Amino acid sequence: MGEQLTSRAENYSQWYNELVIKSGLAENSAVRGCMVIKPYGYTLWENMRDILDRMFKDSGHVNAYFPLFIPKSYLSREASHVEGFAKECAVVTHYRLKQNPDGEGIIVDPDSKLEEELIIRPTSETIIWSTYKNWIQSYRDLPILINQWANVVRWEMRTRLFLRTAEFLWQEGHTAHQSEQEAIEEAERMVHIYADFVENYMGVPVVIGVKSPAERFAGAVNTYCIEALMQDGKALQAGTTHFLGQNFAKAFDVQFLNKNNTLEYVWATSWGVSTRLIGALIMAHSDDKGLVLPPKIAPIQVVIIPIYRNDEQLAKVNQVAFSIEKALKARNISVKYDNRDEYRSGWKFNEYEMKGVPVRITVGARDLENNQVELFRRDTLEKNLVDCNTVVAEAEALLEDIHKSIFNKALAFREQNITKVDSWEEFVDVIENKGGFVSAHWDGTAETEEAIKEKTKATIRCIPLNNPQEEGKCVYSGKASKERVLFARAY
Amino acid sequence: MGEQLTSRAENYSQWYNELVIKSGLAENSAVRGCMVIKPYGYTLWENMRDILDRMFKDSGHVNAYFPLFIPKSYLSREASHVEGFAKECAVVTHYRLKQNPDGEGIIVDPDSKLEEELIIRPTSETIIWSTYKNWIQSYRDLPILINQWANVVRWEMRTRLFLRTAEFLWQEGHTAHQSEQEAIEEAERMVHIYADFVENYMGVPVVIGVKSPAERFAGAVNTYCIEALMQDGKALQAGTTHFLGQNFAKAFDVQFLNKNNTLEYVWATSWGVSTRLIGALIMAHSDDKGLVLPPKIAPIQVVIIPIYRNDEQLAKVNQVAFSIEKALKARNISVKYDNRDEYRSGWKFNEYEMKGVPVRITVGARDLENNQVELFRRDTLEKNLVDCNTVVAEAEALLEDIHKSIFNKALAFREQNITKVDSWEEFVDVIENKGGFVSAHWDGTAETEEAIKEKTKATIRCIPLNNPQEEGKCVYSGKASKERVLFARAY
Repeated sequence: MGEQLTSRAENYSQWYNELVIKSGLAENSAVRGCMVIKPYGYTLWENMRDILDRMFKDSGHVNAYFPLFIPKSYLSREASHVEGFAKECAVVTHYRLKQNPDGEGIIVDPDSKLEEELIIRPTSETIIWSTYKNWIQSYRDLPILINQWANVVRWEMRTRLFLRTAEFLWQEGHTAHQSEQEAIEEAERMVHIYADFVENYMGVPVVIGVKSPAERFAGAVNTYCIEALMQDGKALQAGTTHFLGQNFAKAFDVQFLNKNNTLEYVWATSWGVSTRLIGALIMAHSDDKGLVLPPKIAPIQVVIIPIYRNDEQLAKVNQVAFSIEKALKARNISVKYDNRDEYRSGWKFNEYEMKGVPVRITVGARDLENNQVELFRRDTLEKNLVDCNTVVAEAEALLEDIHKSIFNKALAFREQNITKVDSWEEFVDVIENKGGFVSAHWDGTAETEEAIKEKTKATIRCIPLNNPQEEGKCVYSGKASKERVLFARAY
Repeated sequence: MGEQLTSRAENYSQWYNELVIKSGLAENSAVRGCMVIKPYGYTLWENMRDILDRMFKDSGHVNAYFPLFIPKSYLSREASHVEGFAKECAVVTHYRLKQNPDGEGIIVDPDSKLEEELIIRPTSETIIWSTYKNWIQSYRDLPILINQWANVVRWEMRTRLFLRTAEFLWQEGHTAHQSEQEAIEEAERMVHIYADFVENYMGVPVVIGVKSPAERFAGAVNTYCIEALMQDGKALQAGTTHFLGQNFAKAFDVQFLNKNNTLEYVWATSWGVSTRLIGALIMAHSDDKGLVLPPKIAPIQVVIIPIYRNDEQLAKVNQVAFSIEKALKARNISVKYDNRDEYRSGWKFNEYEMKGVPVRITVGARDLENNQVELFRRDTLEKNLVDCNTVVAEAEALLEDIHKSIFNKALAFREQNITKVDSWEEFVDVIENKGGFVSAHWDGTAETEEAIKEKTKATIRCIPLNNPQEEGKCVYSGKASKERVLFARAY
């Protein structure tokens, strides 16, 4: 370590890229657009996954696994779906390599061409609904409430670690229902579960809303989303849930006998969050010294660092440090005692600040003379001497306090950065200079939405749920409008 | 349900295929050779994965994630490695689809051809060692003890659910060490962890051994394995660990400065088990009535079924059943109370026997008059009336007993089916008629191994660890031999 990060003020984008790499979360791989998620980053993802998985199971869902490959003809069945994904598909065309008969090296065997090309799943609606067709005959077979943890591939041209990568990890829920109402309720339930997770475990406040038609998922009737605000004033879509209507049921001819004994198409939802969430939490909380990780999902919640000059001091320090470590573990707190002697304590301080460990306990021989250790919180960088006998309880309380504190800080930042505007000049000025969400009237047309995007790069992030209805005039066209929507530049 | 399974005696292979589908574990997908792992099967896999993951972490390993794609040139770097996998590679050649300009439908855009083809990982040694090159400079960076849970693809021509599928789920450990000895110890440690898991959680006894050179992993210096015996007398390789020597370090030029400050190539291991283990446990324990699942990993450990004639009886039955359910859950036992009234109890009995639920508790209104319920064990199909007050403790004890019992039964079967032979006539006779493992002397040559395989379809499954040394003559060539090895026909 030792090297400084580029500061956020200097170059936010470079700060982010350096931070992901220097903190050991992930790095770019030799394969274009694909990342290597390093152990520290993967442990963070495991913690997030385990909590989400529990939330999904507690709300009645079960996991399953569907194929990585989607026959080209399946992806093409739902017209707007294939249009949405066609431009970024990894396509498998052959199934064998062989020695080059004309020379050196290995070539793709031309005799192994597939009759039908296979697409690496960019999302699994089509392969799953082709399967549900065999599972669903009667209303008794419904609902189906399935989730899948998987890798997916979208061949993005511009990639950034976690935020946009060709391959990423995610979960995708795919549910089947006997009524429109039930499916809509499911899509709404899941967007609230996502909001619960992102706010209460990641400490990132979100706006829950629906997308404008132009921003909907390819194949959805309605898309719900949670939108978060990053420190540079750009928005980030953190998760989406989709009410798919009967679109995929019709594309794959999935009908069921309802209670009145008549055939009806099945109603569907899908919903997903991905490793992109890691990008969101980094950009919401971290600072120029490194990551600031949310305590509830941090791979290491507490790090203990010893300070000593000789073996005699080390023996005393070890005794206290091991006892604190044991007591923290007994409280189910993830703790690391870093007693490596090849690194100085100053180096370790920087290292764990860069890695965003929420709480640091420094056990120093001198402080121990007063039966004290130093308790440090990563978010505010404050430190205090505390009594050895109370440090464990104080560290545990501090974790809770840091969660609240980073959430409140991010919430205050967001509240300061939702700006109501009523004129086009104001709109452009706020988007250009202040950033954040702009709350403005919109006439509801795709034309206006597109024109605003072209002129300012701002898009409609969402129409908030329970949005207050108020008469107004579209900030761009001047036409009548019944509600404000949130615009922002976004990741 | 209701339909009978083909019996094992009639057609073992058909019994297996029907069983996987009828029990709801998995089914074939629309994509050639790829399976859909249904919720019941996936929960079984989750239970296995969670236990293995804990064992890996307890032995010092951490998880990470590497790309799905491997550039063709990377796969080709290690000569025997690419030779081993070239014939079964899914190859990505393009990254975009488009509307067919000459007519209907969607086609692969020829302008999106990749400069270098990407292989879907059949295993990740090459992509991982290309990454380790950047992570390893000094002995201080070693060991690296990383595991990855992932999907992999091997384009097999003949596939069978769980046993051999084009895509499968697995874990792959990839470790890097500073000495040959340390790497060998790691490969041996992991094969023992696999044996521990398969025997003590899946209830399947295994022989631990090493592969003959011809059966080694492509790129390994030595391959360790665990071999299990299925009920039809065929062997199944349940897991392998590989000492890779310096082969991949040399292929990717991964050197480190050792403690003497000289550059040295890094020593490597890799090791993996897959969803194939599910095939192993099905074929080791199940019977003509359905699955017999090992209690420690069964998705449902105890099912409770009510029997009643009227609402008054149902109220009494419910009261007892809910209280048993609650008490079992409090003991961390996975329990399902199936009180659906659209299915008869006889149908439910068959259903859960097919699904292999280890313990069934039937709460019947008549038995309740004597404060009794019926306790049924799936493995032996025995049932007993037990007191309501003791049923929870008895069910818990029964789960433990069933584990021991199915393990001992499988062990006894295997012991009866390891046959020592000393002549070629005996060898052929046992392989053809009795099946199982044949323990025979082998001259150590690949030629003899190949000849035996051609004549009998039997392969060397392994040379057991700590194999007794004894002078003998090769059962095929008559040449001198120092130890017996285990032959069998295998999955």
